[in-house]
Amino acid sequence: MAPAGTKRGILERLDAGEVVIGDGGFVFALEKRGYVKAGPWTPEAAAENPEAVRQLHREFLRAGSNVMQTFTFYASDDKLENRGHTQRFTLLTHLISACDLAREVANEGDALVAGGVSQTPSYLSCKSEDEVKAIFKKQIDVFVKKDVDFLIAEYFEHVEEAEWAVQVLKTTGKPVAASLCIGPEGDLNGVSPGDCAVRLVKAGAQIVGINCHFDPETCVKTVKMMKMGVEKAGLKAHYMCQPLAYHTPDCNRQGFIDLPEFPFGLEPRILTRWDMQKYARDAYNVGIRFIGGCCGFEPYHIRALAEELATERGFLPPGSEKHGLWGSGLEMHTKPWVRARARRDYWETLKPASGRPFCPSMAAPDGWGITKGHADLMQQREATSQEQLKALFDKATKH
Amino acid sequence: MAPAGTKRGILERLDAGEVVIGDGGFVFALEKRGYVKAGPWTPEAAAENPEAVRQLHREFLRAGSNVMQTFTFYASDDKLENRGHTQRFTLLTHLISACDLAREVANEGDALVAGGVSQTPSYLSCKSEDEVKAIFKKQIDVFVKKDVDFLIAEYFEHVEEAEWAVQVLKTTGKPVAASLCIGPEGDLNGVSPGDCAVRLVKAGAQIVGINCHFDPETCVKTVKMMKMGVEKAGLKAHYMCQPLAYHTPDCNRQGFIDLPEFPFGLEPRILTRWDMQKYARDAYNVGIRFIGGCCGFEPYHIRALAEELATERGFLPPGSEKHGLWGSGLEMHTKPWVRARARRDYWETLKPASGRPFCPSMAAPDGWGITKGHADLMQQREATSQEQLKALFDKATKH
Amino acid sequence: MAPAGTKRGILERLDAGEVVIGDGGFVFALEKRGYVKAGPWTPEAAAENPEAVRQLHREFLRAGSNVMQTFTFYASDDKLENRGHTQRFTLLTHLISACDLAREVANEGDALVAGGVSQTPSYLSCKSEDEVKAIFKKQIDVFVKKDVDFLIAEYFEHVEEAEWAVQVLKTTGKPVAASLCIGPEGDLNGVSPGDCAVRLVKAGAQIVGINCHFDPETCVKTVKMMKMGVEKAGLKAHYMCQPLAYHTPDCNRQGFIDLPEFPFGLEPRILTRWDMQKYARDAYNVGIRFIGGCCGFEPYHIRALAEELATERGFLPPGSEKHGLWGSGLEMHTKPWVRARARRDYWETLKPASGRPFCPSMAAPDGWGITKGHADLMQQREATSQEQLKALFDKATKH
Amino acid sequence: MAPAGTKRGILERLDAGEVVIGDGGFVFALEKRGYVKAGPWTPEAAAENPEAVRQLHREFLRAGSNVMQTFTFYASDDKLENRGHTQRFTLLTHLISACDLAREVANEGDALVAGGVSQTPSYLSCKSEDEVKAIFKKQIDVFVKKDVDFLIAEYFEHVEEAEWAVQVLKTTGKPVAASLCIGPEGDLNGVSPGDCAVRLVKAGAQIVGINCHFDPETCVKTVKMMKMGVEKAGLKAHYMCQPLAYHTPDCNRQGFIDLPEFPFGLEPRILTRWDMQKYARDAYNVGIRFIGGCCGFEPYHIRALAEELATERGFLPPGSEKHGLWGSGLEMHTKPWVRARARRDYWETLKPASGRPFCPSMAAPDGWGITKGHADLMQQREATSQEQLKALFDKATKH
Repeated sequence: MAPAGTKRGILERLDAGEVVIGDGGFVFALEKRGYVKAGPWTPEAAAENPEAVRQLHREFLRAGSNVMQTFTFYASDDKLENRGHTQRFTLLTHLISACDLAREVANEGDALVAGGVSQTPSYLSCKSEDEVKAIFKKQIDVFVKKDVDFLIAEYFEHVEEAEWAVQVLKTTGKPVAASLCIGPEGDLNGVSPGDCAVRLVKAGAQIVGINCHFDPETCVKTVKMMKMGVEKAGLKAHYMCQPLAYHTPDCNRQGFIDLPEFPFGLEPRILTRWDMQKYARDAYNVGIRFIGGCCGFEPYHIRALAEELATERGFLPPGSEKHGLWGSGLEMHTKPWVRARARRDYWETLKPASGRPFCPSMAAPDGWGITKGHADLMQQREATSQEQLKALFDKATKH
Repeated sequence: MAPAGTKRGILERLDAGEVVIGDGGFVFALEKRGYVKAGPWTPEAAAENPEAVRQLHREFLRAGSNVMQTFTFYASDDKLENRGHTQRFTLLTHLISACDLAREVANEGDALVAGGVSQTPSYLSCKSEDEVKAIFKKQIDVFVKKDVDFLIAEYFEHVEEAEWAVQVLKTTGKPVAASLCIGPEGDLNGVSPGDCAVRLVKAGAQIVGINCHFDPETCVKTVKMMKMGVEKAGLKAHYMCQPLAYHTPDCNRQGFIDLPEFPFGLEPRILTRWDMQKYARDAYNVGIRFIGGCCGFEPYHIRALAEELATERGFLPPGSEKHGLWGSGLEMHTKPWVRARARRDYWETLKPASGRPFCPSMAAPDGWGITKGHADLMQQREATSQEQLKALFDKATKH
Repeated sequence: MAPAGTKRGILERLDAGEVVIGDGGFVFALEKRGYVKAGPWTPEAAAENPEAVRQLHREFLRAGSNVMQTFTFYASDDKLENRGHTQRFTLLTHLISACDLAREVANEGDALVAGGVSQTPSYLSCKSEDEVKAIFKKQIDVFVKKDVDFLIAEYFEHVEEAEWAVQVLKTTGKPVAASLCIGPEGDLNGVSPGDCAVRLVKAGAQIVGINCHFDPETCVKTVKMMKMGVEKAGLKAHYMCQPLAYHTPDCNRQGFIDLPEFPFGLEPRILTRWDMQKYARDAYNVGIRFIGGCCGFEPYHIRALAEELATERGFLPPGSEKHGLWGSGLEMHTKPWVRARARRDYWETLKPASGRPFCPSMAAPDGWGITKGHADLMQQREATSQEQLKALFDKATKH
Repeated sequence: MAPAGTKRGILERLDAGEVVIGDGGFVFALEKRGYVKAGPWTPEAAAENPEAVRQLHREFLRAGSNVMQTFTFYASDDKLENRGHTQRFTLLTHLISACDLAREVANEGDALVAGGVSQTPSYLSCKSEDEVKAIFKKQIDVFVKKDVDFLIAEYFEHVEEAEWAVQVLKTTGKPVAASLCIGPEGDLNGVSPGDCAVRLVKAGAQIVGINCHFDPETCVKTVKMMKMGVEKAGLKAHYMCQPLAYHTPDCNRQGFIDLPEFPFGLEPRILTRWDMQKYARDAYNVGIRFIGGCCGFEPYHIRALAEELATERGFLPPGSEKHGLWGSGLEMHTKPWVRARARRDYWETLKPASGRPFCPSMAAPDGWGITKGHADLMQQREATSQEQLKALFDKATKH
């Protein structure tokens, strides 16, 4: 594995005002490819099917990603144990495989390797700050040993836990990004996006922002609120945004998890490449410079980000070799009316039909307390005997 | 490359009443991954990016495919020349690469290799039967040399050209399948599905059916019409179906090409895995036994076919290791209302929302003669100077 | 009551190539106003609330109607008895009231009075031709006595019963129109629209066409099929069309009755005035000259028909005094962007939103044999003990 | 005209905790019937077509209305002059006619007569408080002379002008209601609903609330905010709500005027009777006791309010004679699957389809500053020469 530091680092790039393109979410992309199981969402494929993980890294690199996030989502001891994976592979071997894969592909282009940690079952189970931090520490040790380029604390619903993560990450001396999975209403304790951002910056994060749970429009709006909070507090930070590739105008504050379509009926909500170009432009205009994706992003979505900002960046990604801008590849089509689609105006204004006349355009989110059939549902289903699940839930509903 | 014939052949399987699961369309899947350019749609990736093509083959195999179609779509001399690829790679090297990749992966599991030929620009340009057949012959020679397991003449809009193809394919002695890209209204000359099927069977095809251009519901309906035609004529055949993974209730007879969303705004129309299970069941009930997919299919779509028919087949595909049937993986989810989704009834009856309240559910297809803004459009756009395109179009509209 | 014949008759007008504007359906309009009960749909309001019926006649006259249909829908002995109305008013008094109201208002403008008969429970109960004809005869006697200007046999699902009605109506010597409530698939016995029309013309109807059950697009299409049938048979007739004011692209052959929204959730389907103008134009282009409406039509819908055809007819209806053509009344609006809507192009191309993001755009019709939950439903509901209903249903499903 | 005071007054009823059912909006209902011109929206029909106005009053009374609002919308000198009506009828004759009609019908049942004043062009043109109050005074004089039962200041977008109106109305000694046409974002000067309500109560209104511009859900929410404001200020009031009969989830703060469908394409948004029952229940639960409607309400909508609250009120309205509760009239239908709709659960859970698969479910509101095509549009259209319109607009956009 090649050492970090041979390329310009994340902060050098952002300080210089450059746009850094992130990658897409691995668990959803690999679920569709057959390597991740929805429900547990654990990343054992990094050890079990490295060629599949490597290929996805390559596709994102080719699409223009400057960041290869190690495929280590939910790779904490407590989560893996919770998901019944202790027998199958150890945390250590997994993390090492994931780092090696990311570094191998990053070295094939202009990309950095980022190691990530996420929220833990231990926090939700009311474990102490020390216990939670010990879990992060164990993951970080591998990242340090494998010398990743920077660290991301991502997918936190409670800013308090994210602060703890940032504090652990800061001990490494590496640049630290922190990204919550919240919307404009704030974290699950009701802390506003602005206040969350201030706390994360004060905890030591140089980059703050949002990932997952909501569509690009909502995430950009939330990062904008974070930025206003940071600026109002007289602080300074860089901003990142890695939203879903699903339209979620109908979410409540817990995001797409509560939509009835999660996770196996989200197809009609998938963003087009043109939706993605709009997202890239909106994020750029708000001042976000680390622009990537999360669940639902396919390589062509990332390429759309890089293409939208090609002028600002001065170059197109390698993958654009196989993509005419604004549909220009259609100019060779046989039918004149298809050739007529080879123009920006056509795709920018298209309102794509769903082909589903029996389906609605929005859904009412599920959720404890808002589902009127809830009581019946709980009677129908046998009460879970798993103490841990109950504890998690009690904690979740206390907020 | 391992020889054909070491496994039970396609006809042995179908004659025994087994279900054969096909694979999904490569051009659309690889376009999203960054290796195929929309518009030309040519398969140079087989030579240029073999690891990407191999990986997709592997994912389909893992999902349950019994057929690896060589990635040779539009790989005819006239098409490649038409698309400007003569400089970049020769037909021969490409075909060989594509066959080797398919065989390599097929040998990793219980799959056969199928070589395919498709409709040619030469036919549309009114070239003679001999000229068109010569083009097919040139492709077939490679398939014979690489010893594929069987041959498919697919994606034909005119049954006459498909007959010519079948006649050429028959000369090899290998099993021959023939699949048109037409709907219930018949081929572009107005020949009904039933009559098309009879002609193809008489030309020598042992398997007949439909691929591409329409959604599963429409394709199954059309194959059913083919089957009725064949049976009424006192003939016998096996049936295949490889539809789009897009809902297209609003298509006219030229299929999804004429939808305004083709090809860069089709996302809201993508079928869910549950839609796919319904398709597999419908196809099975109609008597179709070679059941696969075309444009839009991802590996998880193919897996859904294999899962729906697991009882009939007696086994699940390898990829089901990462997929609880009917969402059972959600039983481990933290939130009770998400756990409540871990049941068949939930997903079977879900009407997924598009998250696009500003978009319609159906679109009016474009097309010469039906687009009222057509005249204006043609004035706005410079008349193409390419004689060939004009000839193609004249031919197309004569029918 | 003024005598008939003091104005130019319906056939004089149609023979001269004039456009005759019909009125709208009374039962739906008066149900919304509180005078008709949905379910029975009987017209007792003509006797009980004459001022409400008179007012609706006046509004249609003002909107441009040239025909005042007597409010006598379902006013046959057997239907009224079936609906339990025998105690409340006698057929005779009701019919007389309805005729007087129609004549009173017709005399206020350039309108004719038409007396109508509709399909009978007796026919569905397999009563003999003589028995069914006797029912029509009893109604007709009143129409003759009150000297209506012409007669309409309307809302028949079986052409045989409509023929019987026409035969009775012809005995009066008055012009006879015959209008079925069928779609392109034909009557409930499977007789095609073309054949139905030929039989009605041969039975003596001078005007044939369609009313109720389907939207304007479907009805115009069906009348066109009737016209082609009549012309192919070398016969001659005038054509009429009185469709629903509801969009019903999702109907099966029994029309809007089987839509889940019937009759209390049809609001989102109501046509705009601009939809109506399109209908008037389409009907005119097909050669239909008696153009009116049925269930769902409000006076402004009829006005839209008269406005669309104002050039052909040479005049606007009185009600246009309160309606600027193509929204021109908005030119006085305070806000510039509302004033910008005062133009034809705006309203003609508007795709009006439903404001219902949780609702689909199409519905699956109910119906014996197509509702999968039907068996359960029949178990849930107590079997009706009414022998008559059973007989009706048996008859209906035999076809 | 019978004197006021022979029935229990509005405050007696509300103080006793009774539910008072309002009527529906006259301008939209009479526009559909052919007596009001969209754009000017002036009420000359009260003088010109009294039978049409009387009939509508009667239908609302029959539907359960306890309040007959005089048909005097926009009947102020400055508005009528603005609309070019000075030649046609005088304010005085109009107001007298409108009062007489309302009283005549009110005396046929248990209804009170309410005289109303609305926002004036003079206020928007920056006339002085005295000038604006003089306009209200002139209208009020007629209401006092005709001895209406109480007064409503309704349809105000600026709380300041509504306060002035209340102050004038209070001088009569009659009960005063004040109703703004604002949403949760407050009046056009940004005053919150809570603060608006406090100001209106302090100005002397005994009843405060919302009418027009938004759908029931939004209006009930806004009245709830008003109630919280009043209670927080330690004041006391009664609450009223008279919303649109159109679903408007997509409105901005200026309400349905800015929707592209206003006013001639709103049909798909019309509420069903079941939507209305939900509204009545929601309003009641929030503590609103004067519950009525505005634009779009037809008599059957009002009847639905009275039916929903029949238990609380102890009686059904006269119009329910022609309406089985929850569709029970369908129990007599011939088809079993239609009879199966004769139950509450069916209609309460129905998601009615629009029958418009080519239309979206939501629209983007127009509006100065938010319409991107605005500049072009203004160039296309000739600048208005009417100084007054310009002044109105300048004032409107200053806020």
